[in-house]
This record gives sequence, C-alpha cells and structure tokens, in this order.
Amino acid sequence: MASTLDGLLELLDLETLEVDLFRGRTPETWHQRVFGGQVAGQALVAAGRTVPSDRPIHSLHAYFLRPGDPSVPIVYQVDPIRDGRSFTTRRVAARQHGDPIFHLSASFQVVEKGFEHEVAMPAVPAPETLASVHEASSEGRSRMSELLQAFRAIDLRHATTRADDGSDRVLPGHRSIWVRVVEPMPDDPLLHVCVLAYLSDLTLLGAALLPHGLVEIPSDEVQTASLDHAMWFHRPFRADDWLLYEQWSPSASGARGLASGRIFAREGGLAVSVVQEGLIRPRTSR
Amino acid sequence: MASTLDGLLELLDLETLEVDLFRGRTPETWHQRVFGGQVAGQALVAAGRTVPSDRPIHSLHAYFLRPGDPSVPIVYQVDPIRDGRSFTTRRVAARQHGDPIFHLSASFQVVEKGFEHEVAMPAVPAPETLASVHEASSEGRSRMSELLQAFRAIDLRHATTRADDGSDRVLPGHRSIWVRVVEPMPDDPLLHVCVLAYLSDLTLLGAALLPHGLVEIPSDEVQTASLDHAMWFHRPFRADDWLLYEQWSPSASGARGLASGRIFAREGGLAVSVVQEGLIRPRTSR
Repeated sequence: MASTLDGLLELLDLETLEVDLFRGRTPETWHQRVFGGQVAGQALVAAGRTVPSDRPIHSLHAYFLRPGDPSVPIVYQVDPIRDGRSFTTRRVAARQHGDPIFHLSASFQVVEKGFEHEVAMPAVPAPETLASVHEASSEGRSRMSELLQAFRAIDLRHATTRADDGSDRVLPGHRSIWVRVVEPMPDDPLLHVCVLAYLSDLTLLGAALLPHGLVEIPSDEVQTASLDHAMWFHRPFRADDWLLYEQWSPSASGARGLASGRIFAREGGLAVSVVQEGLIRPRTSR
Repeated sequence: MASTLDGLLELLDLETLEVDLFRGRTPETWHQRVFGGQVAGQALVAAGRTVPSDRPIHSLHAYFLRPGDPSVPIVYQVDPIRDGRSFTTRRVAARQHGDPIFHLSASFQVVEKGFEHEVAMPAVPAPETLASVHEASSEGRSRMSELLQAFRAIDLRHATTRADDGSDRVLPGHRSIWVRVVEPMPDDPLLHVCVLAYLSDLTLLGAALLPHGLVEIPSDEVQTASLDHAMWFHRPFRADDWLLYEQWSPSASGARGLASGRIFAREGGLAVSVVQEGLIRPRTSR
C-alpha cells in the first residue's frame, strides 16, 4: 500500500526490462482498480528514464483507456518519438493482459529563459490554520476521507477560496486544497513531478460535481472515472512543501465534466496548470 | 491554397491508402512550413474515418514534433487503441520523410445525458458591428493580417472583452475574436470540428504575448511555434455560424507561453475549451 512515503517511492521505482521497456508493480490496496494517478506517475517515470536529466519536463497529455488490474504488474513501453535540439518528446503505452490501459505523451525541454508572467494565487488561509482531511476522517463522515486513509503519505487541507482583488468575496464554483507529502523527499525533480501527477488526479474531478451539490468522490449517486489528464509545468516546486491546488469546472455535459486546476508553490508562484475531463454519469440513468 | 471554402474542404478530404492509413496534400502557399492547424485538421479527419458516426468526438490532445514539408504529402497512420462500450480512442501519427511530424490522440463517445453547467460568454459587441481583420488588412498594417489573406474562407473580428457581471470592466489579459467560415458548409459534424481544429490554432498563441505588448504573430521580435494543442468539445456548434473565441494566458516561463481559449456558439453556449502551449522565444536571446 502506498500509505507511506517509502511505499509511494517504491511504487515509482520501476524495473527495467529492456531499453525503453519498464515494469511497475501495484501496491496491495482495498481498491478494486489500479488508482489512475499511480499509472500516470509510473508512466512518467518510464518516460523520464529515457530523457537526459538536463531536460526538465514541461508538459504531459494522457488518456485513461481501461481499468487497471491490481493483481498483475503493468508494463510500460516508451516510444522515443522525438529527440530534437531543444525538445525531447516521449510516448508511453501501459499494458496489461495484452491491452493498452493508459497512454501518455510528455515533452521535455532544455532550460531556457524568456517572457515571464503568471496568474496570482487566490487568497486563502495558511495550511497551518486548517484541519487535515485525515483529522476530519476520524469523524468517519465521508467516503473520500476513508479513501484518503490509503494515502497517509499525503496531507490535504481544504481552504475557502477568495478573490485576490481585495473584495474578500468567495469565488463561486472554486475550491482550493493545500496538499503536500508529509515526509522529506529526495531532491530528484522528476520524482516530485511524478508524485504531483499521482496526487493531482486524486481530487480534481470532484470540482466538476461542485455546481451540483455533490462534493464527494467516490459517490453513490455518480459513476466517476478519469478520462484524460493534462499538465503543464511552469516553475520548479517540491511535493514535500505545501502546494495550493485551486480547482474549478468550466463545463459539464454529455455525462462528462471538465475540471481545471492550478497548483501554486507557497512562495514560488504558479508551478503547474492541470486540466482533466472525467466521466460523471448519474447512476439513475443507467 | 486554402483561401476558399472549397480549398479548405479539399484539404480535409484525405486519400485512403489502406485500412487506418491515409494521405493528405498540402496546398500551395507562401508559408515555408505546413500550417499546424492543417495537420491537426487532417489528423482528425483520419481518426474520424475509423470511428462510427454515432460517436461524436469529445476531446483531442496533440503534439507538434517537427516542421512539415509543404512540398510532399503527409501520411497519417491511425492506431485504433480502444473500442469500448461507451468510448472509442484513436492515436494518429503524421509522417514525412520517415519521421513523425505530429501526433494526436482523440476520444469519441456515444451520446449520453448527465449533469449540465457551463461558464457564461463574456460581454462583447455583436460581430456585425465590428470590422473584419480582412478589412483592417487592406490598410496593410500587420503581418497577421497579411497571413490571414491566405485564409479568406475565414472571417475574424476582434472584440473588446468585458466581464459579464454588470461592471462593464474590460478583462485584463483577455481578448475575444468572433470567427466563422464565410460560406455555408455541409452538415457533417466532424467536418465542423476539423475546421475548428484548423482555425483554433491560428490565433491562440498570440494571447501569451498580450501581457508583453506583442499582439502580432508572426513577429520580428519573437520566434513562435505551437508545441501542443488540446480541445474539449462540450456542445454542438457550426463553424459557418459566428463563434466567439475568448483567449487569455495564465503563464509564460522558460521561453514558453500557455494560452487558454473558450469557444462559444453565438446562441448555443460553451462549445469548446482549448489549451495550447507554444514556444515564445525572444529573438535577441538566440
């Protein structure tokens, strides 16, 4: 189980089978499926193993194709589709039982300088003043909290989101979550990216249910599943420092919801942009 | 040249070489490279040819890998990676001279109903009250306008973007463009999607230069190139009706800019969400 940091790091330590071919294990868990963020994190490790370390990742795009089977390993095949002067691009297919369960494309770039601008972090209370979801879970009030028991390496704290324009108005449809890995992590930057890929999938889709009064995923009322996942990495960050994950949903239709996220380093500005579309299918319509 | 609607439709009419294998031509043009939106549109046609027509597209994710060579055709190989009960997923690689120049993943879904919400269209003047970029171009004042001479099938009209909260304040860093194909198009919904993929790449990246006072792409001061392109299709639309393309940029760093877009059908609400990252490299640093 990836409930500790060691478990999380072990999860992201793939076995090399051949050039461009890797194998990842699934932790024992009460989940009936492999957690999507785990596959995304492992696929990113596979891609990163084939890219020079002086080229940091700047973006990834992924599709979830089939539920993973937690009882067998996952094999990751890397396609080195471009090795350019400034950019390196990789495609990764994750397979089980002969079928692709997930695929990811990721792009890496030499370090360059250029234009700088960024949106501001919303006004939220400091994480130290807020209750951890784990503390809330001891009240036994939600399935989400229960799910998070399996991720004790990660601390999550919900914060009310207010506009950064001095008006002090709560931003409707937005929610913000402070998140961090609770133990100190090794310095490898790609590891921090993989952990963030892992945990950015954990809570985002719930934002698409906020406008409908359903804040908890998993839910008895809605069948949910991540469909895709895209991340853009703007500035350095550490997953073992507090990160503010702002989330909102611009649209839902066709039994799908689109959720957008921004992840801010506490002192370091906008670190990551995230977009995910997910299935949000009312169970009554089945 | 794709300057007329017939030219645009001809561009999107691929030749079938084999099952899952297609060939597209590049129009004669003054461009030294293949226009990125053309490859995206053609790749989407290739994907769509392999998917049942009762499964509309709901998302695509693409990477631009190498400049296209306008002097030879482009071959599109489709990988039918998933044919599921509700979802069909395709990967498409575009190749020239033995190398991938572009790849795209796209997902299609049976028609379903579910939760509905959407962001509101910003307050902008009606397109009939605004000047076309083509009219502005006759004043010979910009390279962008000149470029658009090659796309006379498309009308573009810049509109000032104001908040939809009654305050009448101009949204800083946002711009809005009314866009449509000027002649009536056939009813095939995927054709409208392909045309929108084609033209959504045309102006978006410029939004990342707005905060730096550089509104025109191509520019003498900045080397620009599309790096990726993602679209989520929320609601039906027609490319030959006026669409409002709202654009802004949450971040620039590392010689890259991230641009976000929303495309509203004039009467039909939020039709499409778009995100694109592009290279915006100051030429002085070369």
